Amino acid sequence: DFAKIDLERHQRTGYPEVIYGQGKSIEQIVQIMRDLKQAGQTILVTRVSKHQATGILKQFPNATYHATGRCLTDVSQTPPLTSSTIAILTAGTTDIPVAEEAAVTAELYGNRVDRIYDVGVAGLQRLLANIEVVRKAKVVIVIAGMEGALVSVVGGLVNKPVIAVPTSVGYGTSFKGVTALLTMLNSCAAGVTVVNIDNGFGAAYSASMINHLGGKNGD
Amino acid sequence: DFAKIDLERHQRTGYPEVIYGQGKSIEQIVQIMRDLKQAGQTILVTRVSKHQATGILKQFPNATYHATGRCLTDVSQTPPLTSSTIAILTAGTTDIPVAEEAAVTAELYGNRVDRIYDVGVAGLQRLLANIEVVRKAKVVIVIAGMEGALVSVVGGLVNKPVIAVPTSVGYGTSFKGVTALLTMLNSCAAGVTVVNIDNGFGAAYSASMINHLGGKNGD
Amino acid sequence: DFAKIDLERHQRTGYPEVIYGQGKSIEQIVQIMRDLKQAGQTILVTRVSKHQATGILKQFPNATYHATGRCLTDVSQTPPLTSSTIAILTAGTTDIPVAEEAAVTAELYGNRVDRIYDVGVAGLQRLLANIEVVRKAKVVIVIAGMEGALVSVVGGLVNKPVIAVPTSVGYGTSFKGVTALLTMLNSCAAGVTVVNIDNGFGAAYSASMINHLGGKNGD
Amino acid sequence: DFAKIDLERHQRTGYPEVIYGQGKSIEQIVQIMRDLKQAGQTILVTRVSKHQATGILKQFPNATYHATGRCLTDVSQTPPLTSSTIAILTAGTTDIPVAEEAAVTAELYGNRVDRIYDVGVAGLQRLLANIEVVRKAKVVIVIAGMEGALVSVVGGLVNKPVIAVPTSVGYGTSFKGVTALLTMLNSCAAGVTVVNIDNGFGAAYSASMINHLGGKNGD
Amino acid sequence: DFAKIDLERHQRTGYPEVIYGQGKSIEQIVQIMRDLKQAGQTILVTRVSKHQATGILKQFPNATYHATGRCLTDVSQTPPLTSSTIAILTAGTTDIPVAEEAAVTAELYGNRVDRIYDVGVAGLQRLLANIEVVRKAKVVIVIAGMEGALVSVVGGLVNKPVIAVPTSVGYGTSFKGVTALLTMLNSCAAGVTVVNIDNGFGAAYSASMINHLGGKNGD
Amino acid sequence: DFAKIDLERHQRTGYPEVIYGQGKSIEQIVQIMRDLKQAGQTILVTRVSKHQATGILKQFPNATYHATGRCLTDVSQTPPLTSSTIAILTAGTTDIPVAEEAAVTAELYGNRVDRIYDVGVAGLQRLLANIEVVRKAKVVIVIAGMEGALVSVVGGLVNKPVIAVPTSVGYGTSFKGVTALLTMLNSCAAGVTVVNIDNGFGAAYSASMINHLGGKNGD
Amino acid sequence: DFAKIDLERHQRTGYPEVIYGQGKSIEQIVQIMRDLKQAGQTILVTRVSKHQATGILKQFPNATYHATGRCLTDVSQTPPLTSSTIAILTAGTTDIPVAEEAAVTAELYGNRVDRIYDVGVAGLQRLLANIEVVRKAKVVIVIAGMEGALVSVVGGLVNKPVIAVPTSVGYGTSFKGVTALLTMLNSCAAGVTVVNIDNGFGAAYSASMINHLGGKNGD
Amino acid sequence: DFAKIDLERHQRTGYPEVIYGQGKSIEQIVQIMRDLKQAGQTILVTRVSKHQATGILKQFPNATYHATGRCLTDVSQTPPLTSSTIAILTAGTTDIPVAEEAAVTAELYGNRVDRIYDVGVAGLQRLLANIEVVRKAKVVIVIAGMEGALVSVVGGLVNKPVIAVPTSVGYGTSFKGVTALLTMLNSCAAGVTVVNIDNGFGAAYSASMINHLGGKNGD
Ligand SMILES: Nc1ncnc2c1ncn2[C@@H]1O[C@H](COP(=O)(O)O)[C@@H](O)[C@H]1O
Ligand SMILES: Nc1ncnc2c1ncn2[C@@H]1O[C@H](COP(=O)(O)O)[C@@H](O)[C@H]1O
Ligand SMILES: Nc1ncnc2c1ncn2[C@@H]1O[C@H](COP(=O)(O)O)[C@@H](O)[C@H]1O
Ligand SMILES: Nc1ncnc2c1ncn2[C@@H]1O[C@H](COP(=O)(O)O)[C@@H](O)[C@H]1O
Ligand SMILES: [Mg+2]
Ligand SMILES: [Mg+2]
Ligand SMILES: [Mg+2]
Ligand SMILES: [Mg+2]
Ligand SMILES: [Mg+2]
Ligand SMILES: [Mg+2]
Ligand SMILES: [Mg+2]
Ligand SMILES: [Mg+2]
Repeated sequence: DFAKIDLERHQRTGYPEVIYGQGKSIEQIVQIMRDLKQAGQTILVTRVSKHQATGILKQFPNATYHATGRCLTDVSQTPPLTSSTIAILTAGTTDIPVAEEAAVTAELYGNRVDRIYDVGVAGLQRLLANIEVVRKAKVVIVIAGMEGALVSVVGGLVNKPVIAVPTSVGYGTSFKGVTALLTMLNSCAAGVTVVNIDNGFGAAYSASMINHLGGKNGD
Repeated sequence: DFAKIDLERHQRTGYPEVIYGQGKSIEQIVQIMRDLKQAGQTILVTRVSKHQATGILKQFPNATYHATGRCLTDVSQTPPLTSSTIAILTAGTTDIPVAEEAAVTAELYGNRVDRIYDVGVAGLQRLLANIEVVRKAKVVIVIAGMEGALVSVVGGLVNKPVIAVPTSVGYGTSFKGVTALLTMLNSCAAGVTVVNIDNGFGAAYSASMINHLGGKNGD
Repeated sequence: DFAKIDLERHQRTGYPEVIYGQGKSIEQIVQIMRDLKQAGQTILVTRVSKHQATGILKQFPNATYHATGRCLTDVSQTPPLTSSTIAILTAGTTDIPVAEEAAVTAELYGNRVDRIYDVGVAGLQRLLANIEVVRKAKVVIVIAGMEGALVSVVGGLVNKPVIAVPTSVGYGTSFKGVTALLTMLNSCAAGVTVVNIDNGFGAAYSASMINHLGGKNGD
Repeated sequence: DFAKIDLERHQRTGYPEVIYGQGKSIEQIVQIMRDLKQAGQTILVTRVSKHQATGILKQFPNATYHATGRCLTDVSQTPPLTSSTIAILTAGTTDIPVAEEAAVTAELYGNRVDRIYDVGVAGLQRLLANIEVVRKAKVVIVIAGMEGALVSVVGGLVNKPVIAVPTSVGYGTSFKGVTALLTMLNSCAAGVTVVNIDNGFGAAYSASMINHLGGKNGD
Repeated sequence: DFAKIDLERHQRTGYPEVIYGQGKSIEQIVQIMRDLKQAGQTILVTRVSKHQATGILKQFPNATYHATGRCLTDVSQTPPLTSSTIAILTAGTTDIPVAEEAAVTAELYGNRVDRIYDVGVAGLQRLLANIEVVRKAKVVIVIAGMEGALVSVVGGLVNKPVIAVPTSVGYGTSFKGVTALLTMLNSCAAGVTVVNIDNGFGAAYSASMINHLGGKNGD
Repeated sequence: DFAKIDLERHQRTGYPEVIYGQGKSIEQIVQIMRDLKQAGQTILVTRVSKHQATGILKQFPNATYHATGRCLTDVSQTPPLTSSTIAILTAGTTDIPVAEEAAVTAELYGNRVDRIYDVGVAGLQRLLANIEVVRKAKVVIVIAGMEGALVSVVGGLVNKPVIAVPTSVGYGTSFKGVTALLTMLNSCAAGVTVVNIDNGFGAAYSASMINHLGGKNGD
Repeated sequence: DFAKIDLERHQRTGYPEVIYGQGKSIEQIVQIMRDLKQAGQTILVTRVSKHQATGILKQFPNATYHATGRCLTDVSQTPPLTSSTIAILTAGTTDIPVAEEAAVTAELYGNRVDRIYDVGVAGLQRLLANIEVVRKAKVVIVIAGMEGALVSVVGGLVNKPVIAVPTSVGYGTSFKGVTALLTMLNSCAAGVTVVNIDNGFGAAYSASMINHLGGKNGD
Repeated sequence: DFAKIDLERHQRTGYPEVIYGQGKSIEQIVQIMRDLKQAGQTILVTRVSKHQATGILKQFPNATYHATGRCLTDVSQTPPLTSSTIAILTAGTTDIPVAEEAAVTAELYGNRVDRIYDVGVAGLQRLLANIEVVRKAKVVIVIAGMEGALVSVVGGLVNKPVIAVPTSVGYGTSFKGVTALLTMLNSCAAGVTVVNIDNGFGAAYSASMINHLGGKNGD
């Protein structure tokens, strides 16, 4: 009896319990998925390796493995789609796995998502060329590794809440994402809040809550 | 000509430039306030010592110094009040200065605020006795030093975005707020985002953006 | 002559020397086990990999390998069982290996153990549903990774000594258990003491000493 | 209404709420003391400066300020004294303030205390000359700064739970107690648990819980 | 005979020994200045407090104290002025003391300097409005505290070497400049090199070497 | 559409976008190389493993893999060679891979390079025997791991800008290059600027900018 | 020409250049060994893996690989043996590889060595039983991981210089030897100096210098 | 009875207990001095402020306060002077207080001392001009802050044990001596051992032990 699944969470917070896949055996994940499924809840497993996914899919052939975002979903009931959007930006190409974890999460919860990838500040014109899409979003997720400067530039250009996700991309003094995290916590642009390194899921979860505020479908 | 005031910020982001008081001379602050005033903008100066405040108030007698929250305001035009609220919680008594920085900021930007102070998890019944006020807020700010565990408990009980503010309250391995920050970044409750240590202002700024989403007055 | 086994430890401290398996060759472990066995002492080897265990069991076929808790025991003489209990709690499912190291150690030393796993604070009702079992224990071990907030909540609800074990479960700024450790050291609930990251053995050792105080069988 | 005093804590945990003095104004402390007094509870304020103490004593002339341990007590009802003892050891002379915080706390809660100060391992014979007093204690508190090695030596010589308190005594790489803390967490002697740097109060609180286990007066 | 002044340094490196004022007594500084003066060398003392300056100026009435940049100069022979320039940028107003240390150093060594202060990325238009002055410099010094993102934006817009100076401006996780330093070391824009926190002098020294390369007066 | 290649960078900064190979799939690198090639730009991919290189060379048989420096080049048009030189020094033999990343980068951009390897300060005569070659360079790159002391000695002997590259060579408290980095940032010799750990590319990029200043071919 | 071997080192410091094996290819090591051999110098290669050793021994069949201490020697001329001794102590069994690196180094340089292993402070009687051998040594090397407390106890019992070597043995907050290092640097016993984590070689090198002081053969 | 003075230390280790003055009251120091005096032992108090010294000298008018080295001595019996010497080097002028703590300690214990101050590597010729004095010493103490590179250069030039003392001189990333400490622990020159930051006393204590080895007066 290794797990006490929090089946009331959906009722308490509006979202079902999410399974953190890392460090769990395939058997443990499958067992928890069974219990959630039986309770009629939508399933999201994060940090799922290719190996774990293969094992799980044998038991849940209707589930979907999102390889880039390393997560696995099994939808019980498709939620209505918001008319407002969440914009998801990355600074570089190697930040995309974290962005996809965020995107899959956000879409699972019924959010319209705009992906704007590889617009880091070393080539500012790339961001400026896409700024209107960013500006019309209801909430913006900015994902960056290395020095994470993209967050401050975006924060200074939009009038919407910005959720920053540091990634472990980089080497040497990037310290596996700590540098990007510190940059984001100290952003000179107000309106920025931050989540743990590589936590695309957490950023999307908060963004979804925000995107659903204020009316039906988040409008 | 030491400062290039960002007078267009109000138009770009919906909020005027805010003055960071720490490390600035009274003369520098007064000069920047003059420029903002002339542009008709509401003024907020954060991290203002009693000494700085006295000097500034001589030049701006209509400004207000909020001693507990160490900030100073000069309102050009009172914004309409939101009908939805921001709940501001603290774990202990010594976290209140940071909470007041947040409360003053939020109220300045037209938000209705509910203060729920000294409800740390060592005496859980204090939080549970106030949980309904927290639950009806549109966004929740949780402020805590020491080990910062209050954030995870609140995050598990509400279905609204939670913004966590670590404070420098504590000693020894509290490391001037770093421990509380790490706790908050690793919260097992989803829906939590975090700002810099003691950054009550930043939390309120993001909360205000969220509270104003979705209709007139944030409804 | 690589080891000077501390055969008098049992007499000095009430407990025999325990073998720390990590970094030792199978030959070294087997040799030390032989010496302990010959002295008639109960054997506990901690941090034993599956590979090491297989090698050891060939020489000590009557020993038991506890796979989840990664430790190996060979009991010389079963101690009397305490009537009082040690409660062992975990915040999540992935903390269970550390909990089992603690449980095996505690049971080896004759303690009655109650396992209460996966009761982290994100779903507080799970802890509250089990609080009576926790309250009737003589000493409580709380095991948690990520942000470790469970310790403070438990510490505020019981009137018994709480021993906290941070685990290396988590990612990014969990810093392999350092964040949970810091949380626990700064707990706002008094009555909490802490051991090294993942040190289930050490927690159970102290808990056993406490559980045996005050009368026969720890009553 | 800055504080929500936890008057039920005494009933829940056996000990009343303790006031953490650092960072609180004299007025705040006095106000909380009034509420505790009115509820008939024994008062302990920790981390009280000489300046704060003077202000408080004007309002509570029957309270006692323990200058070396920087804490203040006002006893409502003297508890029965345990027959078993808590031994409190320090490595050096400069660790004594932390030891006195522990001793005052332990005595306030009715524990018999043995003080054995300045027995650091550089002069091992000092510890050995006092080891019998240590051995007959029911629980041992070891307090040390610098490299904190005393804990491991004591841990190897006694068969009782050891609670270790690192102190901020030292310079350079003592890092204000972090080095002693790390030493204690990694003690090669089992049976050691650790509290925050300079947290004499917390060590005594846990020790008191243990000393009271197992029969009337902790016998 | 406390100091061995390196009088040959001018000949070896093109620049005389510079006196680091912090931690030296007025007498020590004056004595070293005498020796340099006697050798006919231009004098620069950095990190000079107002108190030290007053004492030194009594002995060297022709010296100049640059209060904002906290340094003191005594020119033996004015060098020819470069036609090319060094651009010195700051992100905020509170970074100006470090910028002035750089500017005074650069001007002392005969460099033309352009000051462009308070152009942080939260208000990007301020930088863009000044970008032509930056672009025509031969080398650019970028000075920023907090998250230091200005460096990456500038690095992506110019085709000249950029020397980045982190400052200790900020609070909480700015860690007295460490965060800005890490940002700068990990800049996604190539062509950026970094000096120690608050080291305006060192940045200007390198910039001067670069500005003097390639022809008379650095042209 | 995973990448937004910055084709205008060459025009803006004088250098084309460089591909950071680490963490990218062979397909991603090949795709970006195609776009750069089509735009007629010279290609540099850094941090390319042997495995990645083999895959890329199948698609770009005319490209060159520099195994020691772990980078890959495909030259569109050979730039004119500078008459001035960049000197590249290493302290030890194991620093050579970083040095070769620098050398390949510098040569790709048309710089004459002098390699002076294995001249660490433990055998000072090796540096002194080569000091004239170092002194006639226009800019000097010093590469060292462990304690990185070579930088200060070189900085005191030359009158040219020194760019320091810490390497991750060492063990224990070398902390994968952090110690060498700190040494270099605190060099008592002025005229030293620093790049990220193991960032031979970045050092060469800045050095190339400096070497090209001041006239045709950097003269 | 990747290496500039320091053949004069023997003459300058009394000891030949030692090869640091980690990170070097077999070819590089063999080449340097050839040059040293040709110069008639005794060869020591440290941090040699089994794989490297096999490759090297093919070229140098008369060399000896010391597997436990992971080093390789090729003696040109056996030095006279000192009559005084170096005592080498370890706290545990897993510290022995570092101790053997020290022992091989010391013996190579002609020192008489006494090995006293597994005498950590958790069982103090093991040290006391061997203290006379320790006391008659001319210099003592103490090697310990985890909390490293053995150093302070030894330092307080002997009147000879103690060289402390922290090892990376341990887990969690042992931080791969950093905790033991900090313990040793802060030892309350005077007369202790420290080397890098796992640096058995360096400790033996210094100890050999000391053991050879003061007369023929170190007497 | 706050202190248990270790009067047997002189007999056990050859040196009497030394009083660590920091954090002790004048009364405490005077009391310990009385006990030592009565036992006929030579007294050394380290880290004594001017204020403490004034108070102590009133009770011990024959004691000497060494203001630069912040220590106080009271000699019971002058030891014979060694014929061999300890060389004490500093990199800069601001390192002298630590050097004087070392020099006073060494001279108190009867060692001949050579002071060679302000010979940092930025001006290498200063060291080379004094190298013969360094070479004829029996043991060398090198004291440096900032980047501490002097140690490696000296270590490569002499054939005697080198004891390195990092100092807290510097700013920014010098981290109050941690950078110099790390440099010294990772010195590429063998034969270097290290003590705590600013621990001139400890370095001299070890050096004295070494200087006294091998015959009468350390010859
Ligand atoms: N998992 C563990 N964590 C911490 N200490 C342990 C553990 N297992 C054994 N020990 C201790 O490690 C010591 C044995 O170390 P060794 O001599 O290396 O075998 C014993 O004194 C045990 O008390
Ligand atoms: N010296 C101390 N160290 C750690 N915790 C303390 C200390 N003194 C009091 N406390 C705890 O701090 C809490 C009170 O915090 P507050 O509400 O800020 O007064 C109580 O729950 C006490 O258990
Ligand atoms: N080895 C390297 N170190 C640091 N930055 C690099 C390196 N190689 C390429 N870059 C930079 O990384 C950026 C490309 O990042 P990406 O979009 O992920 O390919 C380019 O702007 C380069 O200037
Ligand atoms: N400056 C110093 N640095 C390090 N240790 C010292 C220093 N001065 C004295 N000590 C040591 O500190 C111990 C005295 O500590 P205490 O009992 O607090 O006086 C003695 O054993 C000395 O060897
Ligand atoms: Mg890109
Ligand atoms: Mg409270
Ligand atoms: Mg769970
Ligand atoms: Mg003492
Ligand atoms: Mg500004
Ligand atoms: Mg070499
Ligand atoms: Mg052992
Ligand atoms: Mg000097």
